[in-house]
Amino acid sequence: MDMRAYVLKKAQEAKEGARAVAKASSEQKNNALIKMAGAIRKKAKELQAENNKDLAEAKKKGLSGAMLDRLTLTEKRIDEMAQGLIEIAALPDPVGEITGMWQRPNGMSVGRMRVPLGVIGIIYESRPNVTADATALCLKAGNSVILRGGSEAVHSNKAIVKILRDVAAKEGINEGVITFIDNTDRQAIMEMLKLEGLIDVVIPRGGEGLIRAVTENSRIPVLKHYKGVCHVFVDRDADLHMAEEICFNAKVQRPGTCNAMETMLVDEKVAAEFLPPMIKRFKKAKVLLKGCPATRKMDKSLEAANEEDFYKEYVDLILNVKVVRDMDEAMDHIAKYSSAHTEAIVTKDYGRAMRFLREVDSASVHVNASTRFSDGFQYGLGAEMGISTDKLHARGPMGLEELTCTKFIVLGNGQVRT
Amino acid sequence: MDMRAYVLKKAQEAKEGARAVAKASSEQKNNALIKMAGAIRKKAKELQAENNKDLAEAKKKGLSGAMLDRLTLTEKRIDEMAQGLIEIAALPDPVGEITGMWQRPNGMSVGRMRVPLGVIGIIYESRPNVTADATALCLKAGNSVILRGGSEAVHSNKAIVKILRDVAAKEGINEGVITFIDNTDRQAIMEMLKLEGLIDVVIPRGGEGLIRAVTENSRIPVLKHYKGVCHVFVDRDADLHMAEEICFNAKVQRPGTCNAMETMLVDEKVAAEFLPPMIKRFKKAKVLLKGCPATRKMDKSLEAANEEDFYKEYVDLILNVKVVRDMDEAMDHIAKYSSAHTEAIVTKDYGRAMRFLREVDSASVHVNASTRFSDGFQYGLGAEMGISTDKLHARGPMGLEELTCTKFIVLGNGQVRT
Repeated sequence: MDMRAYVLKKAQEAKEGARAVAKASSEQKNNALIKMAGAIRKKAKELQAENNKDLAEAKKKGLSGAMLDRLTLTEKRIDEMAQGLIEIAALPDPVGEITGMWQRPNGMSVGRMRVPLGVIGIIYESRPNVTADATALCLKAGNSVILRGGSEAVHSNKAIVKILRDVAAKEGINEGVITFIDNTDRQAIMEMLKLEGLIDVVIPRGGEGLIRAVTENSRIPVLKHYKGVCHVFVDRDADLHMAEEICFNAKVQRPGTCNAMETMLVDEKVAAEFLPPMIKRFKKAKVLLKGCPATRKMDKSLEAANEEDFYKEYVDLILNVKVVRDMDEAMDHIAKYSSAHTEAIVTKDYGRAMRFLREVDSASVHVNASTRFSDGFQYGLGAEMGISTDKLHARGPMGLEELTCTKFIVLGNGQVRT
Repeated sequence: MDMRAYVLKKAQEAKEGARAVAKASSEQKNNALIKMAGAIRKKAKELQAENNKDLAEAKKKGLSGAMLDRLTLTEKRIDEMAQGLIEIAALPDPVGEITGMWQRPNGMSVGRMRVPLGVIGIIYESRPNVTADATALCLKAGNSVILRGGSEAVHSNKAIVKILRDVAAKEGINEGVITFIDNTDRQAIMEMLKLEGLIDVVIPRGGEGLIRAVTENSRIPVLKHYKGVCHVFVDRDADLHMAEEICFNAKVQRPGTCNAMETMLVDEKVAAEFLPPMIKRFKKAKVLLKGCPATRKMDKSLEAANEEDFYKEYVDLILNVKVVRDMDEAMDHIAKYSSAHTEAIVTKDYGRAMRFLREVDSASVHVNASTRFSDGFQYGLGAEMGISTDKLHARGPMGLEELTCTKFIVLGNGQVRT
């Protein structure tokens, strides 16, 4: 069978699955998730055997240590994967919620009902636990998935999918609800992206290259996360002790994440007081600092931050430091260089806190809290499908709700239009 | 200047405009809208003079009477266009609404705030009043517009845009908030569709050809309306008098609209009682009926409805009639042939009403009410930017809310992540 026909057939299976799971009750979906967790735990050894095949091939290809680590399914990770499914089963079902209902003058009621999106395409790289996590979230929200994992994890992914599908079938949910494209040729992705009408939304998870390729070639709407170039602005009226704690946390607590701070902006009115101890603390924590001219006047040992640095997502212990005239200059800097992921202000001034909150056009805007909280679990969404840096449909951390849409419902008693 | 550079410059102006209007107060936006209405009324004669240029060219090109009618700006239509702006000014401002806020265990509050989308690209054909309507809705929701109207209305559109921009400038809102691309070459559209990062969303309004071309070529998210192939299902437990009124209204009241019924599905249990008088009434109203085999057994004078007919959006006094075994067959028919716009059931049975409501996957699902109500004004949204047959971001009639998105806001008092 040629590639186009193969991918089309898979998508049709997923569409069948979507119709079936959309009708499934919460109880049926939750039971399936709990049994999937049990099956994963029971078959941990088999999963590890398949995972070892991937690891052996990866080593042959000379993948880096970090890549190998992400690919590895340890006993603990398999257990966590199973636990994740149980936690998703415990979340409230978003499907069927009436998000609002009102009465019209002619007596008919009009409302919005939350319903599944349909078929969700997940295109991902490396970590095989995404296979189970993403599937469980989609299934809970009443959707089917069509999965295309990276070639480096194909044995692990296929093994996980087989376990999940077997349970789905036993629980009376059409197997198409979990559809896996096992052809690792990039062309398979390109064929997927043409299937508007069969696949309702595509979520790419991986490096910026993958995400750009998907966006540029897709006729299907894409929910995506480019990068996190996050800022903290220390206002002239900040509690400087609080500012130091927040900035340190935003950079150092886990620098490899998308919600870590990459540039610290400091109001010139407090720079002389705030920066020297802050710089000292960062240096002690082995943060490489890149300063603007004003910062470097205070500490000549710092490297210069150049124009390009301000666009960078370091995801490492590196930080740009820039002194600004006032909050307006800080917001102009953010508007120009930020990836519109997460920005924070530290201030005691009510008016500036409210202006920053309103005017900064990012997915998450924090007052007096670390950027590191920008995360579905930390926000209390109960789950996270990723973080969207788009504006349409989903913006910021995505939970179950973002895997649904609403339709209008009308309850009448014979109304006709005149 | 080459096309690419020209369109890029326009989009940059619109981006500037977006930053300005996002900060404008409700009062400032409403004042501008009211003054725009006044300016349109004052300059009605000049508008008509420009419109006459378009009409003269259209006649030379031999455009049809219906096309000429849509293009014409009569005194009444200009007045209605102005009135539309005043009505939009009177609507509540969606920007700044907190759609939810909750407290986390660490004491920080997390919420969602409604904010403008940014720059909205409108690509449209024919009717010049879209220029004012679409601009006003976008502006009210805090967005700028970049407009690309059809070549047949270019003089009218330019004249309307000039009036609106002059008022915007006088009211202290950056003129970029209303940006018009006056190059009528199709290549200008293609250049627009590449400007991801500058334009946040594209809304094409016009024929299916235009909409498909935009969707296939856009890297920017698109909100679109393909077509309305709407169904009414007359259940075995319908009040047959109500069913007749609803079906007649859904087909005949205004057949040229996207929410008119194109196929009537009738449960076989009531077909013999329901269909003969219904068919008689439709015939009297000059509706051309196409029947399934069972329907044609009852009335041999009817044409046969073939497979292709069931996919058609007639937007005319033509109707397919099909007898089905039960509601499941009706829902299967809808799942296969519908454009997922609007479907209705007529029934007195509670269980089937609820199942139809839940299981039919269309933007609007009605119980005992005509499909003709599927419309932003009829639903009480106060405005309508069009109807989306997509699932992401907006589904069904779009009002001001659909021209916004939400961002996460966090109010803390020094929280850091551990």
